[in-house]
Amino acid sequence: MSGSSFGQIFKVSTFGESHGKGVGVIIDGVTPGVEINETDIQNQLDRRKPGQSNITTQRKESDKIHILSGVYEGKTTGTPMGLILYNEDQISSDYNSIKDLFRPGHADYTYLQKYGIRDHRGSGRASGRETSARVAAGAVAMKILESKGIIITAYTIRAVGISCIERNLDIIEKNNLRACDSKAAIEMEKRIISLIDEGDSVGGIVECLVKGVKPGLGEPVFDKIDAELAKAMVSLGAVKAIEFGTGFSCADMKGSEHNDSMDRNGFKTNNAGGIIGGITTGENIIFRIAVKPTSSISKEQKTVNIDGEEQPIRTEGRHDPCICPRLVPVVEAMTALVIIDMYKREAALLS
Amino acid sequence: MSGSSFGQIFKVSTFGESHGKGVGVIIDGVTPGVEINETDIQNQLDRRKPGQSNITTQRKESDKIHILSGVYEGKTTGTPMGLILYNEDQISSDYNSIKDLFRPGHADYTYLQKYGIRDHRGSGRASGRETSARVAAGAVAMKILESKGIIITAYTIRAVGISCIERNLDIIEKNNLRACDSKAAIEMEKRIISLIDEGDSVGGIVECLVKGVKPGLGEPVFDKIDAELAKAMVSLGAVKAIEFGTGFSCADMKGSEHNDSMDRNGFKTNNAGGIIGGITTGENIIFRIAVKPTSSISKEQKTVNIDGEEQPIRTEGRHDPCICPRLVPVVEAMTALVIIDMYKREAALLS
Amino acid sequence: MSGSSFGQIFKVSTFGESHGKGVGVIIDGVTPGVEINETDIQNQLDRRKPGQSNITTQRKESDKIHILSGVYEGKTTGTPMGLILYNEDQISSDYNSIKDLFRPGHADYTYLQKYGIRDHRGSGRASGRETSARVAAGAVAMKILESKGIIITAYTIRAVGISCIERNLDIIEKNNLRACDSKAAIEMEKRIISLIDEGDSVGGIVECLVKGVKPGLGEPVFDKIDAELAKAMVSLGAVKAIEFGTGFSCADMKGSEHNDSMDRNGFKTNNAGGIIGGITTGENIIFRIAVKPTSSISKEQKTVNIDGEEQPIRTEGRHDPCICPRLVPVVEAMTALVIIDMYKREAALLS
Amino acid sequence: MSGSSFGQIFKVSTFGESHGKGVGVIIDGVTPGVEINETDIQNQLDRRKPGQSNITTQRKESDKIHILSGVYEGKTTGTPMGLILYNEDQISSDYNSIKDLFRPGHADYTYLQKYGIRDHRGSGRASGRETSARVAAGAVAMKILESKGIIITAYTIRAVGISCIERNLDIIEKNNLRACDSKAAIEMEKRIISLIDEGDSVGGIVECLVKGVKPGLGEPVFDKIDAELAKAMVSLGAVKAIEFGTGFSCADMKGSEHNDSMDRNGFKTNNAGGIIGGITTGENIIFRIAVKPTSSISKEQKTVNIDGEEQPIRTEGRHDPCICPRLVPVVEAMTALVIIDMYKREAALLS
Repeated sequence: MSGSSFGQIFKVSTFGESHGKGVGVIIDGVTPGVEINETDIQNQLDRRKPGQSNITTQRKESDKIHILSGVYEGKTTGTPMGLILYNEDQISSDYNSIKDLFRPGHADYTYLQKYGIRDHRGSGRASGRETSARVAAGAVAMKILESKGIIITAYTIRAVGISCIERNLDIIEKNNLRACDSKAAIEMEKRIISLIDEGDSVGGIVECLVKGVKPGLGEPVFDKIDAELAKAMVSLGAVKAIEFGTGFSCADMKGSEHNDSMDRNGFKTNNAGGIIGGITTGENIIFRIAVKPTSSISKEQKTVNIDGEEQPIRTEGRHDPCICPRLVPVVEAMTALVIIDMYKREAALLS
Repeated sequence: MSGSSFGQIFKVSTFGESHGKGVGVIIDGVTPGVEINETDIQNQLDRRKPGQSNITTQRKESDKIHILSGVYEGKTTGTPMGLILYNEDQISSDYNSIKDLFRPGHADYTYLQKYGIRDHRGSGRASGRETSARVAAGAVAMKILESKGIIITAYTIRAVGISCIERNLDIIEKNNLRACDSKAAIEMEKRIISLIDEGDSVGGIVECLVKGVKPGLGEPVFDKIDAELAKAMVSLGAVKAIEFGTGFSCADMKGSEHNDSMDRNGFKTNNAGGIIGGITTGENIIFRIAVKPTSSISKEQKTVNIDGEEQPIRTEGRHDPCICPRLVPVVEAMTALVIIDMYKREAALLS
Repeated sequence: MSGSSFGQIFKVSTFGESHGKGVGVIIDGVTPGVEINETDIQNQLDRRKPGQSNITTQRKESDKIHILSGVYEGKTTGTPMGLILYNEDQISSDYNSIKDLFRPGHADYTYLQKYGIRDHRGSGRASGRETSARVAAGAVAMKILESKGIIITAYTIRAVGISCIERNLDIIEKNNLRACDSKAAIEMEKRIISLIDEGDSVGGIVECLVKGVKPGLGEPVFDKIDAELAKAMVSLGAVKAIEFGTGFSCADMKGSEHNDSMDRNGFKTNNAGGIIGGITTGENIIFRIAVKPTSSISKEQKTVNIDGEEQPIRTEGRHDPCICPRLVPVVEAMTALVIIDMYKREAALLS
Repeated sequence: MSGSSFGQIFKVSTFGESHGKGVGVIIDGVTPGVEINETDIQNQLDRRKPGQSNITTQRKESDKIHILSGVYEGKTTGTPMGLILYNEDQISSDYNSIKDLFRPGHADYTYLQKYGIRDHRGSGRASGRETSARVAAGAVAMKILESKGIIITAYTIRAVGISCIERNLDIIEKNNLRACDSKAAIEMEKRIISLIDEGDSVGGIVECLVKGVKPGLGEPVFDKIDAELAKAMVSLGAVKAIEFGTGFSCADMKGSEHNDSMDRNGFKTNNAGGIIGGITTGENIIFRIAVKPTSSISKEQKTVNIDGEEQPIRTEGRHDPCICPRLVPVVEAMTALVIIDMYKREAALLS
């Protein structure tokens, strides 16, 4: 019972591996009559694709989207959209030297334990390449959410030990980190470049801000909107933590400090991050995720092969020293998938 | 499309409000032939129930479990278990004074926005009382997991600004905080008692440790075991954040530090918290959650009524100054629900 | 992964056995703000309960409904409704003589094969008693459908070899067969009484007519509305066949005969039974189900015990010679569950 | 919430229209390590494809399958299989003359009512072409079922008013009707050829026999195996009825006749069609479906256009006068999907 579907109503099912023929997604439950074309989707994929800058992997994948179904004369038909990206740059031979080794931090060992199969080419389903299908689906969700006035923006707020002080959303697409503080971005980039030389990688923190969501979204008690967002984010391979509003800081706060009280103009604070009791308050949704350092590093590490024999390993090839900037559009896409589903579930409940 | 079901195979559906006739749960997909009785379930409920100590709410609820179906001659039949706890201590009149007020930090406002209904008695489905149904279901899951050698233990590691230094699991049930450090527990309790006098509350951090899980559990790409645990935890009203393994700290680590490498004896570290690529490694699963301060405080706060008029509010009554000790069995229960489901999904996939 | 839930959005989960403490149901996804009380539900249960006439089982069960949650001040809250009927007339000793025998036509053998458990009291989950939970849930669905102008009517059209000629829906509740033809009903009843003397039972055909459904309902390609109705009906223990519109007769028809053509006033015929391509046309939905003869008969039959030894069996006790009249409200209830779910799914798709 | 997914564990999601770029399917939950290749799937598709004989449509589609993911070195990996068939023979201009007309018996009207979109090319998702994705998925299921000793065989038993007397399964693939009686097959073919001249079509009855299924499969109370088979079959556009075992005939039988009693050698009869209480008995599963006459006929019919104006219509083009022979592999595929899912659900329940 593999878990390759996401969403209850706007339901997304993905397939494809990093070194197979392609990755793709079926979206079921798309509102009919929505204007959409391949460019709408391609624009989002281009933000995720490799080779964007000197601090992303230099792999070349055009990540070209093909809409196979569900759109007729420029509009969605309400039937399933089939989207596919064919793989192009599959240099599997890159992986021959590590054919039988478990790469530290990678899912090689756990996939073998689970499925009894070792596909050593890239990381198969565990590859970041899988997220391109999510971005494609998210782009469709965003088209529908836009018409409801919803704006989803993610950005790097910390990397290589540097935090953004400013929250300047205008500059996100103008720096290689997709950070929200110009000064911090410059410093981050500098340090990352020196990490590349060391053959090492680093983690970071990405924040996501959602504006324009109406109050009342979320399906208690289990499918609270924060619960679904948490699942969506932690389902990304690089994400090890998530916090909403004040997050971990709330542990040290008093009720009188943390409670968001209201006056005649609405909520006076937003410690809850826009969600109370698992339902949106109408304030901005805000959450942060911890991104682990990229597992693939060229620095020598110790590991074992599938026979348990100890061996050194270097995962050569073309890897991202810090995945945050390429994760940003993926975070936005997953957020869009959660929110569109909640809008549709709300409509279903009330009708 | 309310989200009152959890799990794909070991499927739990709950109902009931804090001030209705009772709360209950149906569990579908229970393995037939498992020995179980009401005491097995009651023992877990007693760890969650109010009135356990001087630092929990003084409400009196016996939380007595009734098994209505699915068990015959002391064994599960494989058909749905119906479990119910009738409400006893429903002093709704406590709530008359706040009938039209939005209590700060509570879901009053969001529920009204969503459902168009104001049930001012307690918090309805948003009440912590709802979690007793989860604990009951979790107790059934635990009976099955025990036979697989799995041990789930949650405990408070931080409260009122004090952190546990030790991880002494033997003392958890011997202090009122369910903390894992005796000294810290004493200090925490002292400070919480003074908070009660102030009419305020406080948050904390709970950690959960799972031993004995086999490698290979988890259903990528969306239903990774960490993704499901994240959803399970954040679906608890008081939880605002979750982190696995090194958690937020990974943001500042290098790949060469964070990657858990292996030697002939297995993994040398467990920065991943027992989960890589969304699949268990066989190491202990470890995660931490941030618990917000209890919203109900007797200290005066500002708010508005349903007509938007500003009014002061004091939520009198009998509330927990720090919910961590009572949340511990709930965290264990939700963890058990995730893990049992993953075992069953694994069996389904492989068969 | 027991299948005790039905519906995607208006989701019904049932529990309970014939000789346990009760049967019940949780309904998740109920529209908030709908007026409902126990009488609305009780009225439907009374149509299903035993002991209604000389040709139904003489067991006495009051089938009294209790609403445990989800309703506040006479209106649904949008949170799960928990409904329960406690069992009263559980004379399990009736079943002692057949403790180890497989009753012909009953699910004794298959349940033992599946679950490895033999609960000889009544039929456990396979008992017709389980359908009272469905009727209760259906009654809630009907309240919502009524406000949309939808009327669901089922009735016996054939029993003991006699067919109804008339389709007089006004007399259905006025004869013991719930048949749609007075003359036929009298004759059917006469023959059934003589069957009781023989200690035998008989089957029949029930038809269901749904008026007022809007065009456009149904979710191709798998969840077509006729596919869901077929599942709903065949999920009833006594039902062995279903046909829509002209049904099996279509096998001998030509396309030029069967195709429902349109003129300016709409469809000229309704051979399709109100559903084309799995979507409602706006015409009446019409289908028929074949009801097998009640398995429990007092006439001696041959069987084996759980050790495979041959023995004669008589299932004494109090059984329905023809279940059609008591099945009628169950058919209506299941139809209501399918239709309400489709309305809600439509709303979700379009929003 | 479109219903383009089928199955709970072996989960199939389809996409694609008759005149788009292709049709495809994702299969999630495939057992890892199963040997499979494109030929295994192609063989089944070739039985469904058009142009097989003088009594099937003369359209030319090679229906060539492409496995895009989930298979590595000739074995399934346990991750989602993505399968696609590109459309080749899309002569949309065939449909220009009927651009604004509702074809009698077709889903043109209902799709427009539901989605607000008119895609006049072929029938979009309502086209029989959609079933090729089902056949592809079913072929994968069959590979797994074969290893369990399960054999699924469907065949025409009635068409153009002629019934098969014999049940000779050896000749099914040797006649153009896929009928189980040689004499009947010859007569059927003769009459169908004369129907082609008339520009008309005809229905029929297909029977399906499943051998080798173990007792105990099926998930009461809603997901009984007959309920799921009923849904699976009625989800096929041409199917208007289904009956199990004695089917509609049971309506006239007595309990003493219909009950399948057992002796020391097992069941003495199989009136139930291999399923009691929604669970397999271990006897052969047997059911029959009614197939409506193909809606597309070249004979002139009356209809209206989208403005409600009356017009005559002839659906020229290349249509099947009787769809039974091409439906046979689709029936087998859907049966395989139900049974594989039930095996996996059983494993999940018991583990």
